[in-house]
Amino acid sequence: MYLYSRPVFYYETDKMGVVHHSNYFRWLEEARTCFFDDNDLAYVVTESLGVMSPITDVSVKYKFPAKFGDIFTVKLCMTKYTGVRFRVEYVVVNQNDDILLEGESGHAFIDERLKPVSLVKTIPERHERMNTLLNKHLRSSL
Amino acid sequence: MYLYSRPVFYYETDKMGVVHHSNYFRWLEEARTCFFDDNDLAYVVTESLGVMSPITDVSVKYKFPAKFGDIFTVKLCMTKYTGVRFRVEYVVVNQNDDILLEGESGHAFIDERLKPVSLVKTIPERHERMNTLLNKHLRSSL
Amino acid sequence: MYLYSRPVFYYETDKMGVVHHSNYFRWLEEARTCFFDDNDLAYVVTESLGVMSPITDVSVKYKFPAKFGDIFTVKLCMTKYTGVRFRVEYVVVNQNDDILLEGESGHAFIDERLKPVSLVKTIPERHERMNTLLNKHLRSSL
Amino acid sequence: MYLYSRPVFYYETDKMGVVHHSNYFRWLEEARTCFFDDNDLAYVVTESLGVMSPITDVSVKYKFPAKFGDIFTVKLCMTKYTGVRFRVEYVVVNQNDDILLEGESGHAFIDERLKPVSLVKTIPERHERMNTLLNKHLRSSL
Repeated sequence: MYLYSRPVFYYETDKMGVVHHSNYFRWLEEARTCFFDDNDLAYVVTESLGVMSPITDVSVKYKFPAKFGDIFTVKLCMTKYTGVRFRVEYVVVNQNDDILLEGESGHAFIDERLKPVSLVKTIPERHERMNTLLNKHLRSSL
Repeated sequence: MYLYSRPVFYYETDKMGVVHHSNYFRWLEEARTCFFDDNDLAYVVTESLGVMSPITDVSVKYKFPAKFGDIFTVKLCMTKYTGVRFRVEYVVVNQNDDILLEGESGHAFIDERLKPVSLVKTIPERHERMNTLLNKHLRSSL
Repeated sequence: MYLYSRPVFYYETDKMGVVHHSNYFRWLEEARTCFFDDNDLAYVVTESLGVMSPITDVSVKYKFPAKFGDIFTVKLCMTKYTGVRFRVEYVVVNQNDDILLEGESGHAFIDERLKPVSLVKTIPERHERMNTLLNKHLRSSL
Repeated sequence: MYLYSRPVFYYETDKMGVVHHSNYFRWLEEARTCFFDDNDLAYVVTESLGVMSPITDVSVKYKFPAKFGDIFTVKLCMTKYTGVRFRVEYVVVNQNDDILLEGESGHAFIDERLKPVSLVKTIPERHERMNTLLNKHLRSSL
């Protein structure tokens, strides 16, 4: 399990007084970015090698509203990696350990023409590191 | 089925050259807003009557990237309404009728203290209109 | 003077109950995009010809808050064009003709390496149209 | 001078490959929030006391593009405080000390009906701390 935390920004709230539901997807992306950065798989490098990683699907359940003044933590776990796709699960909590959101996302690899590619063939050393990371994560849990 | 269309805005794209995945949730919200506006259930009025309608869950599959220069259409259908909750399904297409996204969301009603309420009790005339709208939608399809 | 209108989106508000100040810059961009689209200078085409047009400076005064339920209009006027730069002035009003914002922005042209270019040399026919547009605008006013 | 730093988020970029110009206003807000938090003037508390602080004007010059992979620093200085208004100046740099942006913003205080108020009368102890903070800042510089 990987943890990513930061305060809620004012501009992330809406007139309901809580964080707008679209912003959680940005928090999950921030958490994935840091997760890969911290595991020698920085996304900025992946892109510089000509491989991008778009999201293919995402589903979330909103459990409790996040507010300005809160500090959220995304708990993240990679649950699948096939060489061409990977999946990530999330639980987001606030500073009181209230569960804000539970979710899951799928991701693919594409080249600069937006065509699917296999990481195994395009960047084999990153494929190895993804496998290692998956195994590490499968032995832990959210 | 209800249709909502507009051009993609430049600021909705990211460095991948396509619309960032978090923005589609905003498009779905825009479509719901217009849908209720056009059916005498304007959300701005609902809120002025003390009832808000947060999203409870959402899931989407991304099928094809949206680009700057595209005009998207959200096709929306209300599939369930219970007096305290409702569900909406979506297909988003571009000007070439490529399917960009398929998705589904759930919604509840809450009062200003963020506590769940029943529309039946709080705004009965809106409850009637929601029922009428549901029946109209159940006879059509995405 | 060119006019661009649309409703305020819910996700553009913040917990103060009004539109977040950062979103107005997005409205001004939407208005510029439509302005150029409607004058045979579509930005999507400019970019496809290898020329991008970043903002160099912007200043705004916030006069009155925009709210969910409002329909805003951006009144836009191109006030300067030199072949390498242009300037635009804005007044944004709501449906009651309350002035929400007054502002001004500067823009340059760059190539794909982010280096400044002259439209005169890179896309001369667009240069001509920009000049025509400027003269048309200088004869009107905000 | 106060410093606020964080990495650029992927979703803050646009198809030009650099951070969209509207996002800098959000960075400046994040920096102000932390600045006041760190000086015992947390904005979440100010709001809970019934006083909000909208932006009245802002102007920026964009000097150099910020990219995904960059870590930016907002250097912030309060330059004026009158009891009813305050002004802040900013320089934003990247990890190589390239200046990304220079800017300035004005702010007022309002009550929950969005009417201007004086901090002197509504929250006198915050007025004192604002004055102390101003004097500290006037002795330093950007």
